[in-house]
Formats: sequence, C-alpha cells, structure tokens
Amino acid sequence: MNLEEIRVRLAEFAKVRNWEQFHSPKNLAMALAVEAAELLEIFQWLTEQQSNNIKDDEKEMALIREEIADIFIYLIRLSDKLGVDIEQAVTAKIAKNDQKYPIKLSRGIATKYNKL
Amino acid sequence: MNLEEIRVRLAEFAKVRNWEQFHSPKNLAMALAVEAAELLEIFQWLTEQQSNNIKDDEKEMALIREEIADIFIYLIRLSDKLGVDIEQAVTAKIAKNDQKYPIKLSRGIATKYNKL
Amino acid sequence: MNLEEIRVRLAEFAKVRNWEQFHSPKNLAMALAVEAAELLEIFQWLTEQQSNNIKDDEKEMALIREEIADIFIYLIRLSDKLGVDIEQAVTAKIAKNDQKYPIKLSRGIATKYNKL
Amino acid sequence: MNLEEIRVRLAEFAKVRNWEQFHSPKNLAMALAVEAAELLEIFQWLTEQQSNNIKDDEKEMALIREEIADIFIYLIRLSDKLGVDIEQAVTAKIAKNDQKYPIKLSRGIATKYNKL
Repeated sequence: MNLEEIRVRLAEFAKVRNWEQFHSPKNLAMALAVEAAELLEIFQWLTEQQSNNIKDDEKEMALIREEIADIFIYLIRLSDKLGVDIEQAVTAKIAKNDQKYPIKLSRGIATKYNKL
Repeated sequence: MNLEEIRVRLAEFAKVRNWEQFHSPKNLAMALAVEAAELLEIFQWLTEQQSNNIKDDEKEMALIREEIADIFIYLIRLSDKLGVDIEQAVTAKIAKNDQKYPIKLSRGIATKYNKL
Repeated sequence: MNLEEIRVRLAEFAKVRNWEQFHSPKNLAMALAVEAAELLEIFQWLTEQQSNNIKDDEKEMALIREEIADIFIYLIRLSDKLGVDIEQAVTAKIAKNDQKYPIKLSRGIATKYNKL
Repeated sequence: MNLEEIRVRLAEFAKVRNWEQFHSPKNLAMALAVEAAELLEIFQWLTEQQSNNIKDDEKEMALIREEIADIFIYLIRLSDKLGVDIEQAVTAKIAKNDQKYPIKLSRGIATKYNKL
C-alpha cells in the first residue's frame, strides 16, 4: 500500500466502526503521543549501544515494528482529518532544515539551530 | 518524494552533517516522542470542537504541518536505522487490527480490544 | 512520608537492587515521559466531561493513582540525582508564573504568555 | 511550601484567572505529558555520561529546574481535581514495587517485573 491507499484504508476502518466520533484532531494527537511513548519504553533502560544492537533481537523487533506502525497509522489519520498532504509537508520541512542547519556550521554538532 | 526517496534524502542529510553518531535508535525514539508532544501542545487547551475547526486557522495549520513532518522524519530515520519496512509493518498492523476489533463488537465503542 | 522521606526511600530502593547504573538523568527523564503517557492513555478517548466524571469510577481511579505515583517517583528520583530541591523549584516557578500571567491579561484565556 | 500549601496555592492561581474551565483531568494529563517531553528534550542528544555531568552546567540546570517544577505543578493540580492523595498513592506504590521487584530477583537487572 502507498500513502494514499493507507489513508483510504484507515478512513474506511474508522467509518465502518463508527469511530469518527472519537477521531477529533485533539484525540488523535493524544493517541499519537501515547504510541510514541510505547516505542520509547522499549529503549528506556538500554544503553545506546544496546539500542544499536536491538536489530538482532527478533522478538523486540516485532514489538518495534508494531509501535512504528501504530505511530504511522495515527499520523496518517490525523493528516487526513486536517487535510495535510504529508509528502508535501515533509518535502517542505527538509528544505527548511537544509537552511536551518548549514553543513559547515552543524557538522558533528547536535546543537539546536537557534543556538548555532 | 515517496517513502524511499525520503529515506535516502534523510540518510544523506545526517551523513553530510556527521550526525549518524547521534542517531542511535534510543535517541531517535526520544526525538520522536518530543516531536509528538510538540504536536500535542497545540491541542492541549482546545475543546474537541475547537480542534475540529483548527483546519480554518492557517497560522496554526502551518505549525501543525511542521510538527507532522518532524514526526514523520524521525519515524523514517528510525525505521531506516532498524531496517524496518514501514509500508509492510503498517499493512500487517492494519490486518491485525481488523481481527482485534471485529466490526460487530467494536461499533461505536472506543474500548481497548483486551476489554471487548 | 514527606518529600524528604520519599527521596531517601527511593534512593535506598534503587541502591539495594543495584539499579543506580540505570538511573542516569537521561534514562529517568525517559521513564518519566513514558509514565506521563500511560496516564494520558487513560484519557485519550474520553470527552472532557467524561474525564471530569472519572472520579466516580473506582476501577479507573485505582489506575490513575498508580500512574500519578509512578510519575511522582521518577520526578523525585531525577531531582535527587540532579540535586534539585523540588519545593524550592516549585515555589520559584509559581512566583514566575504570577508575573508571566497577570490576572487582568489572562483571565479566562488559555493563551501562552508569549502571545499575551 | 509543603504539598498541601502548593495544592492550595495552585487552586487559587487557577481560580482567580478563571482557568478552572481549562483544567479538566483530560487537559491536565495532556499538559503534564507536554512538560515531561520538554524535560526529555534537554537530554535527547546527550550521552548518558553527559547527562550525568549536566549538574555542573548551571544554565542547563536552570532549565531543568523549571521543567521539573512544571511537571510537579500539573501533577498536583491533576491530583487535586481528582481527589488523589499523592503521598498516600506514592507510599502504596512503593510498597507494591517492593513486592513486584524482590531484591534477589531484580538485582542489577532492569527487566520489567512481568518478565522476571
């Protein structure tokens, strides 16, 4: 499925369950934050090195794939409700980041742009 | 840009800035949760009705598009680092949700599946 | 237990389990965010009115009390590790908020101070 | 100020600004999660070692104290609205954790209790 097919599929999923009533932008933003924290939980006590090695742990990876999917699903749903074209928004943001973080200034430095 | 083009573009963006050192799965999961909360902040004091009407507020929508893009960007980055095929993960999760939330049982009810 | 007794009790709890190694400020901040999201999850599909009425639902309140305790516990732990005096920090912040949100300007308005 | 004094002070703060209308448990839980993420943001690109050393950076510590205070403030506010006695809830949770994480089983292991 591409983004547009996923969008249509999720809208249909909510509609046939009469879930549109729950899917206000406010509630979808909450659900998205909850799923992001469930992903975070997987990593909370790991060292960075352990988090790099998690790829080799198929059991953990199965969980991670589900959490990533959940976040993606709510992101598509929210964008659909608000009429946001995600690909366009991402393309615009990448262009903006290119300007905010000039390679020369930000090389090897994780400093936020407003401190550069 | 499609998903694959975005993935490649973001990997290049990090590489030329020597940011790979910061992009452990643990750190990317943190960044993702932070961006999800920035989106949440926009809605925190709005009523659900106000959140439905936010579409008509171009100033707020510009912020929302940026936050949605930020979440998307970190989701693609994390998936890339972990070798997750997002479209495949989403397709699998939608199929799973279809089974967890049978239309007859879940119609008009936001109850979590394990309580159905 | 008062704040100081809780602080000592939690430090002891971590020490006898040899958990100090996991309790870096970074990891504790993650754990705190995860617990905050677990609290959020309880409210995500409720209307504001339903959230006001949740006090009468003893089963949900038992969950809420646990999540509130978890957040509090990590907040005390983090403050302890960083040498933050919570009561002093809160007192200072309330004084600051008093200045940021003058009663006349902010009465009945949830606008962030920098927009007032 | 002790917990009870803080509770009264915050209730008064909201009342004179006519902010009670915004302080539903749902909205307060959102505000709390947003503040927890602002704390998280401070640590997101730091190594664990750097997060341990942040105590020596007074500028960062000033930010951290404010975020800790914000989280605490919303936690007290939410508890007040829901009639939760925080000290009691924390005492009960510590006792529960004592049973969930027996010292012998959990020594040096950050495994969640349901996997022990």
